[in-house]
Amino acid sequence: MTTTSSVTVVGLGPMGTALAETLLRQGHSLTVWNRTPEKADALVAQGAHRAADITEALSTSEVTVLCLKDYDTIYRIFDTDALHGSVLINLNSGTPAEARAAAKWATEAGADYLDGAIMVPPFLVGHPESVFLYSGSRDVFDKHQATLTTLGDPRYLGTDTGLAVLYNTALLDLMYATMNGFLHAAALASSADVSAETFAELALGWFLPFVVTPSLVEQAPDLDKANYPGTYGTMEMNLNALDHITRTSVEQGIHADLPRLMKAFGEQATTEGYGANNYLAVFEIFKKRAKA
Amino acid sequence: MTTTSSVTVVGLGPMGTALAETLLRQGHSLTVWNRTPEKADALVAQGAHRAADITEALSTSEVTVLCLKDYDTIYRIFDTDALHGSVLINLNSGTPAEARAAAKWATEAGADYLDGAIMVPPFLVGHPESVFLYSGSRDVFDKHQATLTTLGDPRYLGTDTGLAVLYNTALLDLMYATMNGFLHAAALASSADVSAETFAELALGWFLPFVVTPSLVEQAPDLDKANYPGTYGTMEMNLNALDHITRTSVEQGIHADLPRLMKAFGEQATTEGYGANNYLAVFEIFKKRAKA
Repeated sequence: MTTTSSVTVVGLGPMGTALAETLLRQGHSLTVWNRTPEKADALVAQGAHRAADITEALSTSEVTVLCLKDYDTIYRIFDTDALHGSVLINLNSGTPAEARAAAKWATEAGADYLDGAIMVPPFLVGHPESVFLYSGSRDVFDKHQATLTTLGDPRYLGTDTGLAVLYNTALLDLMYATMNGFLHAAALASSADVSAETFAELALGWFLPFVVTPSLVEQAPDLDKANYPGTYGTMEMNLNALDHITRTSVEQGIHADLPRLMKAFGEQATTEGYGANNYLAVFEIFKKRAKA
Repeated sequence: MTTTSSVTVVGLGPMGTALAETLLRQGHSLTVWNRTPEKADALVAQGAHRAADITEALSTSEVTVLCLKDYDTIYRIFDTDALHGSVLINLNSGTPAEARAAAKWATEAGADYLDGAIMVPPFLVGHPESVFLYSGSRDVFDKHQATLTTLGDPRYLGTDTGLAVLYNTALLDLMYATMNGFLHAAALASSADVSAETFAELALGWFLPFVVTPSLVEQAPDLDKANYPGTYGTMEMNLNALDHITRTSVEQGIHADLPRLMKAFGEQATTEGYGANNYLAVFEIFKKRAKA
């Protein structure tokens, strides 16, 4: 294992460029390729080698990192014959089924394949706390862990190739839900002329990290056991609270669809027999496809 | 200002009892009253005085803390004539309009009134980091701050009496949204046999505190300026991501209403002219009542 293995980066959008710059800065021998070659100019000026074509891009380095728009783009760019013997680490996003199909495609062409997902914006690439998720070939992960550590904090999730993009999707899901919750809560605060900045101090500076998150961490193992004790609050109490949030939203003249939907989830859980449980029993509702 | 002013606690449910026990433990002269008198037995055994009726409860102490079910209960319990000259600190939840009406009712009866909201469960009452929100009479807050500090970390929000319950409602709104986001994300993870406990390590142990929350804190002042630059991601890119989350939910066989609604918010923002802005422009949608 060496920290200066040769790497090719394919795809030089903002994220691919950040990956390439980080690798260069850490002394890797770097080859780059992009459909629009000029996107490589700045990197070439910093010492990168510009591959003449995708076949050269693949054959020049020990490992090829793909940072393209989606899985379809991969199939358009690569000549399957050129893949034999190469090591691909693919970082675009997609669905678990797409990731598994790409692994099958690469393996059938004689390439080693590791799928991955980047959980930080480009400017945080290379930071030791920036998490990169990987799944698929354990062998590729182990052999190239030093290179992956150059890019951030690599986490291997398992041999199911679909795991990295699934985690990525689930984390973004959590991000949008938290963002929507903050935006809606800030809209409630703003209805009484409280600024979002002032509200954020308490909501994000205290309530989320000191009350909400620790409580979820503590209760997460209960989700795996389908254990939702109503000891500290039943679904009925939660529905009262959500009804209260909905009515207050209406009273304050703001949008009320978000609390209304959250209440509907609790109502459905009650209908399905979780009325004496706590609100986390909504997990059972979410795990099932909604009735059409 | 003394840390041992005399206090009456009216309403001895789990929260009222926690307040009373904390005050007793810190050496306050404590009077208690509850409609069902036996609920005071354990407190009386610890040294509390049981008021014979609500008028005695009010007149015995310098300040009376109310911890009742709702505002209607207050009006049922109190004889308005007995209020004159008393100091009320009311901690039940309700809507801003209800809080303002209670302040008006108390003031007209010659009482001083401070409204409040407790942001922690009963077992955390008395902890120095447990936030209690207060709004209304600044005078009452200042005079009794030492007593309020016995109960937790008192935060005065402003003279608008409705602020404490509004903040309370907004924070619960954020809590439910984050909880729903975590439950839905964990359901996605569970569709590939990832346990909620394993997913929580990354989602709550790293992603929420190190990526999502800092980004919201940083962007909160922009909400107040209606400044939603699309520099690092336009609404279209966010809609692609939300469509991806929705499609992955469907592909994995789980419930998809939550991401679908979050996507609808972004689509409405686009319709209303925020297509080139980032997702936080949804704030503008939330601030307005939904079209019927």
